[in-house]
Amino acid sequence: MTAQTTDLALEVRRFLEAEVLPLEPIFLKHGFKAVLPELERVRQKVKEKGWWLPPLQKPLGMGLGLGVFARLSEELGRSPLGHYVFNTQAPDIGNMEVLLKHGTPEQKARFLEPLAKGEVRSSFGMTEPGYPGSNPVWMNTRAVLEGDQWVINGHKWYTTGFEGSSFCIVMCITDPEQPNPYARASQIIVPTDAPGFQQVRKISVMGEEGEDWMSHSEIRLENVRVPQENLLGARGKGFAIAQERLGPGRIHHCMRWIGIAQRSLELMCAYAARRELAPGKPLGSRQAIQHLIAESQAEIHAARLMVLDAAEKVEQKGAEGARVEISLIKFFVAGVLQRVLDRAIQVHGGLGMSDDLPLSFFYRHERAARIYDGADEVHKTVVARALLKDYGLDISL
Amino acid sequence: MTAQTTDLALEVRRFLEAEVLPLEPIFLKHGFKAVLPELERVRQKVKEKGWWLPPLQKPLGMGLGLGVFARLSEELGRSPLGHYVFNTQAPDIGNMEVLLKHGTPEQKARFLEPLAKGEVRSSFGMTEPGYPGSNPVWMNTRAVLEGDQWVINGHKWYTTGFEGSSFCIVMCITDPEQPNPYARASQIIVPTDAPGFQQVRKISVMGEEGEDWMSHSEIRLENVRVPQENLLGARGKGFAIAQERLGPGRIHHCMRWIGIAQRSLELMCAYAARRELAPGKPLGSRQAIQHLIAESQAEIHAARLMVLDAAEKVEQKGAEGARVEISLIKFFVAGVLQRVLDRAIQVHGGLGMSDDLPLSFFYRHERAARIYDGADEVHKTVVARALLKDYGLDISL
Amino acid sequence: MTAQTTDLALEVRRFLEAEVLPLEPIFLKHGFKAVLPELERVRQKVKEKGWWLPPLQKPLGMGLGLGVFARLSEELGRSPLGHYVFNTQAPDIGNMEVLLKHGTPEQKARFLEPLAKGEVRSSFGMTEPGYPGSNPVWMNTRAVLEGDQWVINGHKWYTTGFEGSSFCIVMCITDPEQPNPYARASQIIVPTDAPGFQQVRKISVMGEEGEDWMSHSEIRLENVRVPQENLLGARGKGFAIAQERLGPGRIHHCMRWIGIAQRSLELMCAYAARRELAPGKPLGSRQAIQHLIAESQAEIHAARLMVLDAAEKVEQKGAEGARVEISLIKFFVAGVLQRVLDRAIQVHGGLGMSDDLPLSFFYRHERAARIYDGADEVHKTVVARALLKDYGLDISL
Amino acid sequence: MTAQTTDLALEVRRFLEAEVLPLEPIFLKHGFKAVLPELERVRQKVKEKGWWLPPLQKPLGMGLGLGVFARLSEELGRSPLGHYVFNTQAPDIGNMEVLLKHGTPEQKARFLEPLAKGEVRSSFGMTEPGYPGSNPVWMNTRAVLEGDQWVINGHKWYTTGFEGSSFCIVMCITDPEQPNPYARASQIIVPTDAPGFQQVRKISVMGEEGEDWMSHSEIRLENVRVPQENLLGARGKGFAIAQERLGPGRIHHCMRWIGIAQRSLELMCAYAARRELAPGKPLGSRQAIQHLIAESQAEIHAARLMVLDAAEKVEQKGAEGARVEISLIKFFVAGVLQRVLDRAIQVHGGLGMSDDLPLSFFYRHERAARIYDGADEVHKTVVARALLKDYGLDISL
Repeated sequence: MTAQTTDLALEVRRFLEAEVLPLEPIFLKHGFKAVLPELERVRQKVKEKGWWLPPLQKPLGMGLGLGVFARLSEELGRSPLGHYVFNTQAPDIGNMEVLLKHGTPEQKARFLEPLAKGEVRSSFGMTEPGYPGSNPVWMNTRAVLEGDQWVINGHKWYTTGFEGSSFCIVMCITDPEQPNPYARASQIIVPTDAPGFQQVRKISVMGEEGEDWMSHSEIRLENVRVPQENLLGARGKGFAIAQERLGPGRIHHCMRWIGIAQRSLELMCAYAARRELAPGKPLGSRQAIQHLIAESQAEIHAARLMVLDAAEKVEQKGAEGARVEISLIKFFVAGVLQRVLDRAIQVHGGLGMSDDLPLSFFYRHERAARIYDGADEVHKTVVARALLKDYGLDISL
Repeated sequence: MTAQTTDLALEVRRFLEAEVLPLEPIFLKHGFKAVLPELERVRQKVKEKGWWLPPLQKPLGMGLGLGVFARLSEELGRSPLGHYVFNTQAPDIGNMEVLLKHGTPEQKARFLEPLAKGEVRSSFGMTEPGYPGSNPVWMNTRAVLEGDQWVINGHKWYTTGFEGSSFCIVMCITDPEQPNPYARASQIIVPTDAPGFQQVRKISVMGEEGEDWMSHSEIRLENVRVPQENLLGARGKGFAIAQERLGPGRIHHCMRWIGIAQRSLELMCAYAARRELAPGKPLGSRQAIQHLIAESQAEIHAARLMVLDAAEKVEQKGAEGARVEISLIKFFVAGVLQRVLDRAIQVHGGLGMSDDLPLSFFYRHERAARIYDGADEVHKTVVARALLKDYGLDISL
Repeated sequence: MTAQTTDLALEVRRFLEAEVLPLEPIFLKHGFKAVLPELERVRQKVKEKGWWLPPLQKPLGMGLGLGVFARLSEELGRSPLGHYVFNTQAPDIGNMEVLLKHGTPEQKARFLEPLAKGEVRSSFGMTEPGYPGSNPVWMNTRAVLEGDQWVINGHKWYTTGFEGSSFCIVMCITDPEQPNPYARASQIIVPTDAPGFQQVRKISVMGEEGEDWMSHSEIRLENVRVPQENLLGARGKGFAIAQERLGPGRIHHCMRWIGIAQRSLELMCAYAARRELAPGKPLGSRQAIQHLIAESQAEIHAARLMVLDAAEKVEQKGAEGARVEISLIKFFVAGVLQRVLDRAIQVHGGLGMSDDLPLSFFYRHERAARIYDGADEVHKTVVARALLKDYGLDISL
Repeated sequence: MTAQTTDLALEVRRFLEAEVLPLEPIFLKHGFKAVLPELERVRQKVKEKGWWLPPLQKPLGMGLGLGVFARLSEELGRSPLGHYVFNTQAPDIGNMEVLLKHGTPEQKARFLEPLAKGEVRSSFGMTEPGYPGSNPVWMNTRAVLEGDQWVINGHKWYTTGFEGSSFCIVMCITDPEQPNPYARASQIIVPTDAPGFQQVRKISVMGEEGEDWMSHSEIRLENVRVPQENLLGARGKGFAIAQERLGPGRIHHCMRWIGIAQRSLELMCAYAARRELAPGKPLGSRQAIQHLIAESQAEIHAARLMVLDAAEKVEQKGAEGARVEISLIKFFVAGVLQRVLDRAIQVHGGLGMSDDLPLSFFYRHERAARIYDGADEVHKTVVARALLKDYGLDISL
């Protein structure tokens, strides 16, 4: 971690404290759209500071490497609104990376550019309600080439950010007869206003439907037709491309979670120092509270070092080469996040349950950290599989 | 557990499955008031079956003992709406028990009777935002006797069910100069339409403000005047009366939590048996899932036996005599509940995060189980204190 | 739990405190044989008091039911030497129960009687080094009937109490061609002085080989010949008989573990009350220590209720009918034991590591509680399997 | 971590695998002295390779920095005998570092040189049976200057390696009237053959007394006289010097524990790959086993990164400046070690309980990791104290 990175991270933290944190109470009370105009104004400031889209290559973004951005991503993660103001919110950032790497010049002009400028939003349709996320080769959405058009039929859910998105990258089975199940799917760009493309509902998750990129939709495609050239990357490479995006994506998630955990720890410490159990007897003088703080600090420190180490490995060996490191952090950091949030709420008592603080928001929304992008159970098996291979045992996933 | 109790419990379960569970999806999507007309209809059926108000003495209720009601309370707890249809929702049931034991004939006629009939609702104002719940003798709300009226000034929060209640039992310091801090407070019945009695806000808790008895308010009393005869029980006995209600109240909570945990386990098993990870390979064939199920079963079984045992002790020795047993179950069962809910969500994956099932509702709302009515930390110290006393060590709480 | 049982239990506790606990320091320092003469003297007193062999039918023993003996077994478990002085140590008590139920009159006269009188000891040869304990049908020891003799060849280990035993009940495959793998084995009584029956070694376990019934041997049978009538129970019923003994045996183990846990908790409390961290500041005034005490109390209480409940179920429905309850307590109580021991050592610091207290002995030897008589993993799957069956899923073990 | 360090570490691992691991079974069965002649031979080879005393400055040792030695210490930790063959066993290495920094030229010639050459051994007397290790300023051993001699009276225990040591560095109160309690003690070098210096006993720890540097003694000093010039460092600086040694000492312990954990994980994987539960069904195909492996890998990886990070901080800021980092790893890594060992034993079943593998040795002896050099509870409070200070709360330890 160079001094330059550390300085940038601190500058960004101060910027968010000044510009974004004051918007949180409004967001927590009235939702995302209530703060959207203000956020657009902050985005403008981010652009002016030259901080726009840190991980994307110049001139679209700052062109930071994964390791440096991972550190920055922690800072952005401290607020539910942080990533949005830097235009690095999921799933847009992942879509941009895929379009940049696999898009045709026409796709880049039409889909990537407005996305990178923050003019539009996008979504990514992968998970299906009837099929387990842990088995990526088992899905039902089909795209059939008729003439020069793909005709798509399918049913997806947990399509994050579908509401308000201008296009959705849809994972479809295009080659069902391929013997290798990992070579059967392709990714296709589908404008959300295409006839037959409908939102069934926004899924109510942990008590709220959310809004905009902070919502998850159930969607249906019925004979949706898009031009052949909307194929993103090579035919049959849908899984390979998805895998590529998930590696760095998991690093981003993990670092964002560390930002949440770190902020929760700071709230916990501040409250423990301030709140009195009796006159002159602060909460922080209680040994059980001290231990919750110390255990959180240890776990966050461990998590941060592991994520920075994994980012370095991805930079050195690529996402495939760092697969074990990525699986390790995915379940380890998600676990740390959940435990730290739980402790922070316990220390705050009733206040921690309320929406006066962001803890409850994080607690509800980040329970999913142990589920999405591969549940704990999947990643643990990935790690064990790699280790056991060295001892001559080849287990299937 | 007699066969009669078991039969009643099963009959109640079937009744709830037929009458109340079908209302849950509407409740989860549109809130309590959306199902209220239907619930009133179900309440009528409960009355017709002779099941109304199981723990309250005849003719107000069924007159069941604590042990039998504890078992029934598990059944009611399986749905967020279960207790309401039997009129045993918090804080009304606790208020009824206190009015029954300590109320004057006039108070019973005016406040208890309509409450017991389900015609009105009530609330209980104890916790204050500036003071820790773990220190019951440190509070700020004052009631001063001027002529034949109490003049009350104070600030409370987490006043459950204040919205829509006709009166609130308010804990007030009436005798601040008493040397014994436990003899300084009294309970006073305050009509919610009394001038100067205002709701500051409904507290947004875990993302929602809730409605009616399922909401928590921040309230303020400014020179609120009530007649002297609204004093509930003896002057200076406020804490003693509160303690009395909390003992059985914690048994009820614990048994309700077991109902939630038991239902979550059943959902988990049903999903594990039904959901396939690959064609012909059910989720339940995975060893890690089996272990989550088995650990949940063990913990729920342990929790149930402990609560029934504590109920028996309360019946034998009174709430004060069973103080250690009550503290034991308070933190033990709350922990079991949280772990079982967490496992149930993990097993369900994305579906568990959604409001298509009640798991997410329970997960959000029951995080407070480890906080309200005495945080884990407080109850653990109560238990240790009692054990260490036998070894000659007297620790302060 | 009747008052009579409680009284007996307390009387036994006082007896052990007076007669057996003073021998512990010698045992911990010099081993079992160093206290054996004293123990024989105490056994005599036990006989005189009419407490000999509590679970065995009169006139061999007291004829207590499982539930009552379970309670007593907790008391005996408080010392590593407790069960021995009542002649209920493993594996002898299990062997006696099997001989009583399945033995011929000749077997009873020759093998059971001296065992029940405490004149000899016995062992039970089941586990084999090359085969997993979790798969009972996969073993290698063979007994072939030649004329009127069984000729046995095999290799066993963890044959508890082989040293000093006069006979060993050996599980052998006698009918390898049986289609049902559970019908292939039989139990055969083999005198330990039979030619070809040798002890390869005493296995050093957790740093010591132990002595007598407190040791575990690796044994080999090479063309060992015993008369046909040494078959114990019906041919091919070896597994069924083993299963029968394991049910109540697990209850005994669990209750013994609770005795250990309870004593550890008492040691913890006594030390926390006595030891000062600074002048006038006892260890027990520290909140983290209080929490360790309270959590232990909760878990032990839960464990005890579960074991008594399981004992009742076994008395009502038989060991097979109570299979789930038995599996539940097997892994739950073993976990409680390990956690309580760990906490007790932590509270005692360096003293807890030393052999000045029995904690270290328990810590070392009872780590096996999660392994023997079915590892945690096996019992969890048994429980999950039973639950999932109700939802139509039949998983293999 | 440079490539050079990695290469050295691997070379050392291979050396230990060839020279030391084959001695382990003899050590585990017959104790330290049974392998001592062989170990002396291996020490000679270590010297020939130029690897002697890695952390000590040239020409006494290799002169490696803390970060590099920390990495090497992991390799040495993989065997209970590893550190001894490099002459970096506790407490000798700590004594050498103190003598090197604070010793007079005469002390270095007389005490340090033979120690550094491996000709003699030493011990360190700090802990006292009647006083808690968590309160370093509360001790009873006194040294009074009479003429030019220190007259020492005291009672110590857990004096590691006293047996066979030629001298013991004893912590004594020399200035009891000092107002600052941290300025009351001094360290004095006491030859073990001084009249009045006696070993009360070797403490039996986890079932064995151990031998030589692998033993812990209870000792008594009765009017022991040593020359004034045996004072080590300045008078009244005993605590400051002790603190100095504990910082790097904890890094060494932590890295040694990672070596143990890493080896345990490798044993676990090897066994899971090799052992069959049924013909053709390896243990490692079970999901629960896979998860134990993956969780161990994650925790070990986290622990290693944290220790290397702390070593770097100590090199940059000194032990005092890195106090929080050192406390973090002390409790975090000790916890990882205990959990990994527990899992490794569980995976191995009965074999894991036996002394056929080193797991049981580690399990018994390293339970103390959470106790010595500051119990978990102490280090957690140190961490919380440092964090809360930033929020204006100053808690006493």
